[in-house]
Amino acid sequence: MTAPIRVTVWNEFWHENPIHWDYVRRSWMSHGYSEESAIEETEGVREIYPDGIHAAIAAPLRKQGFNVRAATLDEPEHGLSQTVLEETDVLIWWGHIVHERFDDAIAERVYRRIVDEGMGFVPLHWGAGSKVFRKLMGTSCAVTPIVNAAPERIWAIEPEHPIARGLGTSFVIPQTEIYCEPWDVPTPDAVVFISSWPGGEVMRSGCCFQRGRGKVFFFRPGHETYPIYYQAEVQQVIANAVRWAANGV
Amino acid sequence: MTAPIRVTVWNEFWHENPIHWDYVRRSWMSHGYSEESAIEETEGVREIYPDGIHAAIAAPLRKQGFNVRAATLDEPEHGLSQTVLEETDVLIWWGHIVHERFDDAIAERVYRRIVDEGMGFVPLHWGAGSKVFRKLMGTSCAVTPIVNAAPERIWAIEPEHPIARGLGTSFVIPQTEIYCEPWDVPTPDAVVFISSWPGGEVMRSGCCFQRGRGKVFFFRPGHETYPIYYQAEVQQVIANAVRWAANGV
Amino acid sequence: MTAPIRVTVWNEFWHENPIHWDYVRRSWMSHGYSEESAIEETEGVREIYPDGIHAAIAAPLRKQGFNVRAATLDEPEHGLSQTVLEETDVLIWWGHIVHERFDDAIAERVYRRIVDEGMGFVPLHWGAGSKVFRKLMGTSCAVTPIVNAAPERIWAIEPEHPIARGLGTSFVIPQTEIYCEPWDVPTPDAVVFISSWPGGEVMRSGCCFQRGRGKVFFFRPGHETYPIYYQAEVQQVIANAVRWAANGV
Amino acid sequence: MTAPIRVTVWNEFWHENPIHWDYVRRSWMSHGYSEESAIEETEGVREIYPDGIHAAIAAPLRKQGFNVRAATLDEPEHGLSQTVLEETDVLIWWGHIVHERFDDAIAERVYRRIVDEGMGFVPLHWGAGSKVFRKLMGTSCAVTPIVNAAPERIWAIEPEHPIARGLGTSFVIPQTEIYCEPWDVPTPDAVVFISSWPGGEVMRSGCCFQRGRGKVFFFRPGHETYPIYYQAEVQQVIANAVRWAANGV
Repeated sequence: MTAPIRVTVWNEFWHENPIHWDYVRRSWMSHGYSEESAIEETEGVREIYPDGIHAAIAAPLRKQGFNVRAATLDEPEHGLSQTVLEETDVLIWWGHIVHERFDDAIAERVYRRIVDEGMGFVPLHWGAGSKVFRKLMGTSCAVTPIVNAAPERIWAIEPEHPIARGLGTSFVIPQTEIYCEPWDVPTPDAVVFISSWPGGEVMRSGCCFQRGRGKVFFFRPGHETYPIYYQAEVQQVIANAVRWAANGV
Repeated sequence: MTAPIRVTVWNEFWHENPIHWDYVRRSWMSHGYSEESAIEETEGVREIYPDGIHAAIAAPLRKQGFNVRAATLDEPEHGLSQTVLEETDVLIWWGHIVHERFDDAIAERVYRRIVDEGMGFVPLHWGAGSKVFRKLMGTSCAVTPIVNAAPERIWAIEPEHPIARGLGTSFVIPQTEIYCEPWDVPTPDAVVFISSWPGGEVMRSGCCFQRGRGKVFFFRPGHETYPIYYQAEVQQVIANAVRWAANGV
Repeated sequence: MTAPIRVTVWNEFWHENPIHWDYVRRSWMSHGYSEESAIEETEGVREIYPDGIHAAIAAPLRKQGFNVRAATLDEPEHGLSQTVLEETDVLIWWGHIVHERFDDAIAERVYRRIVDEGMGFVPLHWGAGSKVFRKLMGTSCAVTPIVNAAPERIWAIEPEHPIARGLGTSFVIPQTEIYCEPWDVPTPDAVVFISSWPGGEVMRSGCCFQRGRGKVFFFRPGHETYPIYYQAEVQQVIANAVRWAANGV
Repeated sequence: MTAPIRVTVWNEFWHENPIHWDYVRRSWMSHGYSEESAIEETEGVREIYPDGIHAAIAAPLRKQGFNVRAATLDEPEHGLSQTVLEETDVLIWWGHIVHERFDDAIAERVYRRIVDEGMGFVPLHWGAGSKVFRKLMGTSCAVTPIVNAAPERIWAIEPEHPIARGLGTSFVIPQTEIYCEPWDVPTPDAVVFISSWPGGEVMRSGCCFQRGRGKVFFFRPGHETYPIYYQAEVQQVIANAVRWAANGV
């Protein structure tokens, strides 16, 4: 019998946490939101993810038999002590608004665990802007986010890839924030999914990268104001990605 | 001084040629068109491309100083004698409705000129269904064409690639026939362009493949009932592709 | 419980079969062998592989729990009836001297089973010259074989790839026939192994290709006059490749 | 008329400079050299490259019409001021022994000029260990150097690539330091050359990487104690690489 894959779901956990709402609201207002709508948005996040996005991501993985724990920015060492990392086969990463508050030394520790020891790494959504992902890529990872709710259609370009298993040719997420190409990353080893939105935007939304001993899978859909991580297809992709990134554990 | 690149524009030349309209119309009716609309469509093609699609593709290339000739299916040896091929650095290919009427031996001759001698090959639109392209790919090259006019937005995913030179981040072709992923080809060496349509369809629309000594660039936009090859951006892509595929000639 | 992966080991089975020795010897003599050494070589093959190369390849796979059968050229339909193919998850292929005697229609059937239905395909050694592999590649697949016994050192360039599992950084096969770059194939999706020989020759010896729904892994080492398929590392690579190519069966 | 491509050849310039010989010798002795042989080696470098490796690299480029300047570690800002970088289309990089003495802020400046503005970057030999290259790769770039003189045979795996132009199938450099796979870099966009040495070592010795707007070409041969940069084939590769990396300048 094989031991279950050990997954750590890391979440910034500021949008869903009232103690940070002042900061979050000011950030949104600096992006052009009115105070009123900033308040509405922050409160909306908590309604969707009352226990944090990490809880929503972790629950279906637990049901599938993975050994799952969570970690968040405000914990000591951001919840990613050397011991936690050593006990992690795959690290899922959701971050958005305070990437720069993540400690450099701990980013380096996470990076080392990936490239030197083969921990899998699955950044979701704007996890692409995290220090760890940018260091792995060697490029800016810049993309044009378009702050607009729109349905995202996701196509399985490599339908035989293990991360596309159990999904059809395409599926729709009713509302997501739009990201658009060009996206400044090295050519991925495999592009599994491409997304489009009604305005014509496109994005390589599921991309594999081998970096040192570690497998990296970026999955684009997200945004804290929509219930994306409760959707069955999204959960399926994440579970598939964990199995793929676990490196034969 | 370098000699100009020698380009042959091959065109099936049935849609634009009244002697084949009976065949073309019957083909459209077998795809669900009424007789009336089949008649309208065939006559529309001739209005757009009175001298054939090959003439529209060739003219701007000549203006840019390439040494251009044309060849069509009905000519002896489909216009692609051994001599013509030997005098061709890059072969552009437009075909759609009668791929199977192309002689196997001549397809083999074209194929050999590409892989053994390094002639560039630029299939446009449903040139992806030609015998030569399918032989080069080793897969079905199947895609789902959706017979609908819709604006196609084309994104330069690799903005620094020589084939994307002089184009912006994206451009729109007002009306094209839709092709949609998954497209059954081997992973391209480079994906330069990705297209989307308002219905959410996406397609890898500009793809590079090295095959033997020959460079191959597939460019998706086309369809005989729209004036696509008169659009400046499309002409720019084709000229860029010719330079790239010429293999240092 | 998962059903075991169903493997068919296809072998040309002429070198090891005395009824074909006249042909084999004449072939070797046409490559410059003396009659005496041609006789010696053919008889040597049978000593090494008394039950055929397929038996040597099949035995260790059976031990590992795969469901294995064999098929050879002289059987009706070359042993690859529609039923056999439908019951095969991964097809291993050893062929060398009579590729052209393989029936075109059956090659097409094997090809279809790979690209349309996702059967894995593992050509060994000069299986790279088989009709099926060449059709999958779309290139000549030409390489320069150098008929010389020399030790081959095989390096795991992608040490984390599942096909490199359980092997060290490199291993040596005491005697193999040399193949040398350039090898005319499309750029592989992954190069897992690179070989070298004391004369300085190099070869991409373990290469992955996705073609349609099917996974293809070429593994270079071979030659009928050396006991290559009895070596533990070679058996490990083949077993790894079968698991990888089985497409999640 | 096109302006010539502007090349800056950056060289660490410590091995060839007597004021640093104490340091260099101590470094060699720490790698197991006797004092006597360390002295002999350092003096040998100056005999081969009396004006520095940069001079030997720059001279043939100047003859071919490139606009070439040199820069070295000991100059203010390591010779790579903002102005110099802005006037550089392609930066060649030779470094070996004191990568860590390169200023972080200037490494960042060079990196930005590559990924944000498209300057080409051609690291030679252990330029692979430079801060800039490691940042571009996102991996350790570790490789096993084997301090031994041996002839290196270099094979053009992609004979049609522009960087392989004018070279045959393979060529030999009489003496080089050996580097050996596995080499910890992301899968290159193209592997143009593979090397081997008589001991069976292999290395991907010519590799292309697109990073942001910049083209990167790593070329492996080097070592200060051999007259490698005077060899015609090596000079041809470097000139080809400069043209390729110049990004259409």
